[in-house]
Amino acid sequence: MKTGNAELICTGSELLEGKLNLYPPLFHQRLAPLGFTLTREQSSGDRLADIADCIKGALDRADLVLVCGGLGPTFDDLTRQAAAKALGRRLVGSKACAQILALNFGLEKLPPNLKDQAVIVEGAKALENANGTAFGEVITQGRKMLVLLPGPRNEWEPLFGSFLNAEIKDFFRREPLTQAKLRLAGLGEPKAEALLKPAMRKDPALRYTILAGAGLVDFIISGPGPAAVKRAAARCAKAAGPAFYGEGDLTLAQAAGEKLLARKRTLAAAESCTGGLVSKLATDIPGSSRWFLGGAVAYSNAAKVRLLGVKPATLKKHGAVSGECAAEMATGARKTFGSDYALAVTGIAGPDGGTPDKPAGLVWFALAGPRGTRVFRREFRGGRDYVRARAAVFILDELRKVIK
Amino acid sequence: MKTGNAELICTGSELLEGKLNLYPPLFHQRLAPLGFTLTREQSSGDRLADIADCIKGALDRADLVLVCGGLGPTFDDLTRQAAAKALGRRLVGSKACAQILALNFGLEKLPPNLKDQAVIVEGAKALENANGTAFGEVITQGRKMLVLLPGPRNEWEPLFGSFLNAEIKDFFRREPLTQAKLRLAGLGEPKAEALLKPAMRKDPALRYTILAGAGLVDFIISGPGPAAVKRAAARCAKAAGPAFYGEGDLTLAQAAGEKLLARKRTLAAAESCTGGLVSKLATDIPGSSRWFLGGAVAYSNAAKVRLLGVKPATLKKHGAVSGECAAEMATGARKTFGSDYALAVTGIAGPDGGTPDKPAGLVWFALAGPRGTRVFRREFRGGRDYVRARAAVFILDELRKVIK
Repeated sequence: MKTGNAELICTGSELLEGKLNLYPPLFHQRLAPLGFTLTREQSSGDRLADIADCIKGALDRADLVLVCGGLGPTFDDLTRQAAAKALGRRLVGSKACAQILALNFGLEKLPPNLKDQAVIVEGAKALENANGTAFGEVITQGRKMLVLLPGPRNEWEPLFGSFLNAEIKDFFRREPLTQAKLRLAGLGEPKAEALLKPAMRKDPALRYTILAGAGLVDFIISGPGPAAVKRAAARCAKAAGPAFYGEGDLTLAQAAGEKLLARKRTLAAAESCTGGLVSKLATDIPGSSRWFLGGAVAYSNAAKVRLLGVKPATLKKHGAVSGECAAEMATGARKTFGSDYALAVTGIAGPDGGTPDKPAGLVWFALAGPRGTRVFRREFRGGRDYVRARAAVFILDELRKVIK
Repeated sequence: MKTGNAELICTGSELLEGKLNLYPPLFHQRLAPLGFTLTREQSSGDRLADIADCIKGALDRADLVLVCGGLGPTFDDLTRQAAAKALGRRLVGSKACAQILALNFGLEKLPPNLKDQAVIVEGAKALENANGTAFGEVITQGRKMLVLLPGPRNEWEPLFGSFLNAEIKDFFRREPLTQAKLRLAGLGEPKAEALLKPAMRKDPALRYTILAGAGLVDFIISGPGPAAVKRAAARCAKAAGPAFYGEGDLTLAQAAGEKLLARKRTLAAAESCTGGLVSKLATDIPGSSRWFLGGAVAYSNAAKVRLLGVKPATLKKHGAVSGECAAEMATGARKTFGSDYALAVTGIAGPDGGTPDKPAGLVWFALAGPRGTRVFRREFRGGRDYVRARAAVFILDELRKVIK
């Protein structure tokens, strides 16, 4: 499988001063279907000479170079200047860009900081940014392409769909790669690999990537032919069994929501240790109000009693972190919200609050539905955020399996 | 401010194929106290020529170069070879390393894969790795230092304490660096820059970085003297005015929580469009159960009426997205949970559901407290996630300001 070489440059001193760089995996996902392999990533501080040096080196090595960040209006935004320097070109004011900015802001005359945003590298094609003032820029030189992108994810990501995919396809005329992403839940990377290996071996010409999250695994298949990728995806989905819940960018909450919607069923949530995370994941989805009625974050015992009708005797006898409490939270939420299904999560997220009997990481769950209530117990090992994330994934996974 | 320049090279094709690179922030934390600024990070695939090229470039630019990964015994571990190539040195078998490995494994004769682990760059000082078979290596050339480290975090991290800190201090004899991070809320990057510029100008020898999030700004000051950094931090915090809410890693919910805790006050949340996000942010904080009693995610109108006591007449006359509804949600949550304060958020997160009167992005808020209820109206421009994030930040910011 022949792919083009792409390099990514991320600018911003913060990336070298403690901030995690979340972008390389995102760019990998965007570039693979266009037929490009990421061969190097560089993070550079906000110094003009450094950024220019990164660009120069990358253009020497790779076919396609993407620079992300440093196009804003403040003093430490120097990517335009660096690109001009690396290419030996001038910066020029773009009338078209100025007009677009004036139009978007309803201004007759642009203030100086916006005027700076209408400056582009000579010969660049400007890409209008629907979520910010910085234009993306596509610059070609010989058989190479340099792309400048604004730093915020909500600004650069849409530019792929609206302009960049087409620009890259037209310029390089590479055979596009087809990609299929299978989403699995309720297992880790080693288990996923063991399940999928025999299916992978059947088509070694394709490329396979396993990405693991908290209780979630994405399995990405890429290759030149849509038919071969589709066939491999079907084979792998089957091999994954009940862990497979959907394709593409479908979230677990979305998978559950779609099943609920199709059956005209509704959901409510009763959360203690996840503190609203499950509700947040449900309401991340546009239109979720059609199946998600609401949730109770019953962090205190009093709230569990008052909002969800948990019996004080249950709390006294079994404690808030117990199967009994989880079951009463779920049935209570089902009644309070008048929903068909209700889920409940109560546990010890940690790091404090654990005991030898009930260690940090212990979580009880319940699912109440038209056919009764089921209770689950799990122990997760990890920090507070990890335990909460695993707990949310676990109950959403059980939910989507239980909906018939 | 004189610091040494360090560059980090992370090897491993997985870093370019979807795996998040968690290391740069960790290395930053290790290097800053040693007086080094990370000036570039490069992630390279597992190709010898690529790694050698990364090392060569980095050694040209920086004083200290660290390479992490690629020292294992398998075919794709090529960092030793790449370092030898970049420096024009040979690889040699180290008797001392072989003896250590033989001792650790209780073997008289090393098997081939372990024998390979006793090979180092000519002239390198080997650092014994307590958690694996790969030795770290320190190689000096003129006034520069190249350090090779094994990839797993539990292998390279302890090497700093046991050897590297001392090696680096002895070789470079530099002054250590201090950093302060100011956290601001309720303003964007340009506003923050305008407020802080005069304070920044007073000490141009320090370094300043502005990081913007959704309604949040981090302002980082670094320099060699703790006293100078502390003075600048105090000056900048004052210049930021009420937007400044804390230092370091303090979150907005934490700042509000600490004020509540100090005054023995409690909080409840009533959320519609944020769908649990505010409760989630509150309960992200260990120990938040001491001040956060719970929340109601009242996504449907029925839930608003039943859980929070919103009057059906209010919903009919003003709609769910209205100041009237927000106020009743907040006072209702205060009563339901028996808390001192309660916040409410109701809006149109979008992308659907907007009308000309009430566009997507319109959010009404209320804060109910011992001294009555305040209502706020804001319009945010952006996607669903952005609107929800801004709304959560807005109300937490108002909350921490109102607590007296």
